[in-house]
Amino acid sequence: MATDATAEETPEEYEAFLGTVKRLTNVRNAAGILNWDQEVMMPEGGTPARSQQLSALSAVSHELLTDEETGEYLDALEAADLNGDQRANVREVRREYDRATSVPTELVEEISKTTSEAHPKWKQAREEDDFSIFAPTLEKLVELKREYAEHVDPDADPYAVLFAEYEPYLDIDTADRVLTRLKEELVPLIDDVADSDADLATDAFSGQYPEDKQESFVRDVLDELGYDWDRGRLDTAPHPFSSGTQFDARITTRFNEDDPMGALLSTVHEFGHATYTQGLPDEHYGTPLGESRDLSVHESQSRFWENHVGRTRAFWELMLPAMKEQFPQIEDVTVEEAHEAANQVYDDNLIRVEADELTYHMHIVVRFEIEKQLIRGELDVEDVPEAWNDKYEEYLGIRPDTDADGCLQDIHWSHGSFGYFSTYTLGSVLAAQIDAAVREELDVDELVREGEFEPIHEWLTENVHSHGCRYTTDELIERATGEELTADYFVDHVTEKYGELYGV
Amino acid sequence: MATDATAEETPEEYEAFLGTVKRLTNVRNAAGILNWDQEVMMPEGGTPARSQQLSALSAVSHELLTDEETGEYLDALEAADLNGDQRANVREVRREYDRATSVPTELVEEISKTTSEAHPKWKQAREEDDFSIFAPTLEKLVELKREYAEHVDPDADPYAVLFAEYEPYLDIDTADRVLTRLKEELVPLIDDVADSDADLATDAFSGQYPEDKQESFVRDVLDELGYDWDRGRLDTAPHPFSSGTQFDARITTRFNEDDPMGALLSTVHEFGHATYTQGLPDEHYGTPLGESRDLSVHESQSRFWENHVGRTRAFWELMLPAMKEQFPQIEDVTVEEAHEAANQVYDDNLIRVEADELTYHMHIVVRFEIEKQLIRGELDVEDVPEAWNDKYEEYLGIRPDTDADGCLQDIHWSHGSFGYFSTYTLGSVLAAQIDAAVREELDVDELVREGEFEPIHEWLTENVHSHGCRYTTDELIERATGEELTADYFVDHVTEKYGELYGV
Repeated sequence: MATDATAEETPEEYEAFLGTVKRLTNVRNAAGILNWDQEVMMPEGGTPARSQQLSALSAVSHELLTDEETGEYLDALEAADLNGDQRANVREVRREYDRATSVPTELVEEISKTTSEAHPKWKQAREEDDFSIFAPTLEKLVELKREYAEHVDPDADPYAVLFAEYEPYLDIDTADRVLTRLKEELVPLIDDVADSDADLATDAFSGQYPEDKQESFVRDVLDELGYDWDRGRLDTAPHPFSSGTQFDARITTRFNEDDPMGALLSTVHEFGHATYTQGLPDEHYGTPLGESRDLSVHESQSRFWENHVGRTRAFWELMLPAMKEQFPQIEDVTVEEAHEAANQVYDDNLIRVEADELTYHMHIVVRFEIEKQLIRGELDVEDVPEAWNDKYEEYLGIRPDTDADGCLQDIHWSHGSFGYFSTYTLGSVLAAQIDAAVREELDVDELVREGEFEPIHEWLTENVHSHGCRYTTDELIERATGEELTADYFVDHVTEKYGELYGV
Repeated sequence: MATDATAEETPEEYEAFLGTVKRLTNVRNAAGILNWDQEVMMPEGGTPARSQQLSALSAVSHELLTDEETGEYLDALEAADLNGDQRANVREVRREYDRATSVPTELVEEISKTTSEAHPKWKQAREEDDFSIFAPTLEKLVELKREYAEHVDPDADPYAVLFAEYEPYLDIDTADRVLTRLKEELVPLIDDVADSDADLATDAFSGQYPEDKQESFVRDVLDELGYDWDRGRLDTAPHPFSSGTQFDARITTRFNEDDPMGALLSTVHEFGHATYTQGLPDEHYGTPLGESRDLSVHESQSRFWENHVGRTRAFWELMLPAMKEQFPQIEDVTVEEAHEAANQVYDDNLIRVEADELTYHMHIVVRFEIEKQLIRGELDVEDVPEAWNDKYEEYLGIRPDTDADGCLQDIHWSHGSFGYFSTYTLGSVLAAQIDAAVREELDVDELVREGEFEPIHEWLTENVHSHGCRYTTDELIERATGEELTADYFVDHVTEKYGELYGV
């Protein structure tokens, strides 16, 4: 690698290269707006046109990225004398360029076609609780993705190649190490919690909570947390998400009249994503230095705010009075009860998206292990349901009665997304590690209690957000926390919290 | 021109050509969504990124259109044996291609740069009521647009070339003829109305009308008119507009608590635009056959619904009861009073966007005459304010006290849009001509009174909407109404209506 010294002058190709990269990013961000609109605003009848618009933007992006000229710029710039920021931009585009040019267009199209067909099959299989409806398509997708991995890197473990699609700078061994550790530590802890006689205030928030009042309340929460409304907005969507750029990072949430806690924590989670995006440097907009790092780091920011702020006693000391203003019916709920309700463990829950902070990761471990075996050819598609159910029984002590509540519950495989799930857990683990680092410098509980979030934002911006893709993920973690990714902090966090709550 | 017989087989180039055209249209429609979002949803801070996204899409569109390959397809297809529909698609793209390739990129960029700078100058000039702040930029824009016209067609009248940008298939002589006729007929009629002693029920809707109830009411109106909510939506925007495709044609409106008539008629106007868009043929989406004709035809559809439906007695017989349900305060207002309020003439109004159906066109004539002289070099920029004021005095009997209320009131010139205004009037004139043709076949008043809009939609879809750009504008008008564009019907319509209302 070249030295970090600032290059004396910017090579001519670099400006031309940045022009291409900015155009590429802007076309992708335009597609991001179209996706947001489709989920949040578009009337149902708009689908045929929207699909074509998104396909056109995707084709334009692909051609911009894989253009011969892009390759020539990369070759020239890798041989040039660049400064560290410039090298980072080149590194990130190189990685994408190599991936995109290594896979034949026909294969990309076949995968795209197969996933279009897979979605209705998966839906029907889940509705009819009949895995055999989905199995042939799943088998084809597994084969196609294996072939895809072969093109990207014929010498590598194919699952590692697919994982790198979502998390390019944390290798699969890291994921393996973290998930294995969690399995060892959490399985007995979950057992203990399930056996515990603790009587948590799980019905502190029972009753009905009108949607408009929930919305007022979560808007107050976003104000308090420091969401920049001048660069964002809040809407509802069937599956909450956040998206956008540093200039316009939007949040969606969902309201359920009997579950105000769900809307609240989901909003705080999406706030974490959006505040990361809002913290990216304006001056690098349109280039990798102005883009967020990959899925694990993004998830670490949402989980930091959700779990290490939103589920703390301090947060409830701050926000419970505001919640009572909207909902007089909870005037007698105490901070302790609210904290218990926010940290309830659902030890008989089969559904990943309804899981709590503790059991969630066993849902992920099951998927990670099964995907690995599938892609590596160590498990046949027809054996997935049994393998799935066995693992649920072993890790969570519950066995699904149906495949609809078992291996058919998630949409991801019908998208051909193998390797994605583990980033959720890596993000939670990183959130705990970052939380520990923040707490070495700041009294987080005291700041949260006082509603003084600015120092926390400053820490996160300085150590994570402002770097965009300047550092690779492993470098970023090391610089922000002083060590490589480790499950230690997460294990300590849950052991301590649930130990105290459940007396185990 | 070749025969209309269906070609025996589609030439190979035609499919490839359509692929390019569809991609081009889809990229432009994506930009349309970004524009809608910017006006309706985007937080203020989003501007820097949005500008770059729109520029990127615009550059991509321009490159797709002007690509050498596009030119080769056009040459090949013009020599091939095509059917009528295919020839129409080729004709429309050829026109755009020739325009886009005839103007040097540097000039396009200079115009774009100058208009960016012009907007704040115009704004400041208007705020400070000082034309001299805007004059130098206006002069530069006039020069650049003259240069632009010279590139497109060095032998043509430059104003005719600019007009053709907005209305390619109605020549400038038609516009001249129509506007001159209106001036001759309307100036004396406006004089008579101003002198009339008629006592119209102009304060029938005085008072306050809460925004949420106005919204409920205009949604009821859109239901009644037959707006397809599965392919559209209603929102608010500072300057109401409609946009989209046949699959997703959205309306925006604006509410003012003391002007429910304004919101209603503005919504009906935008409904007219949107229902045209919704009536374009699905199967031709992405090609000129699936796109609306140009500005005059679009405006004819909005004005048809606004003026020939929304301002009729029959419409008020239908909708006044629903309006009274939302607003009990108007329980004593009669249909006659509502009709008078909807047709009030503002004979002392200086502002185009606040003008009524009758005086509106004199506002347009002033702009048309001044633009023509400016672009043809017959009027100096510095003399615009005086020429403007003189014309207002002559045609409308009122003289602006300030340039802010005079030649600085409209934003269009700061966009470099010369030739645009007259399409508003041509659209109104065409609306009256279409209305007369519809009434030859249907008892429109009876249908409106009964809320039976389906036959009217069928007529408009069959004769206008479903053709997309199959016919040129002049052909379309001739086919739909049996004659070329004429001001006769508009003149009859306003002479009769205002004659009756004002007793003149």
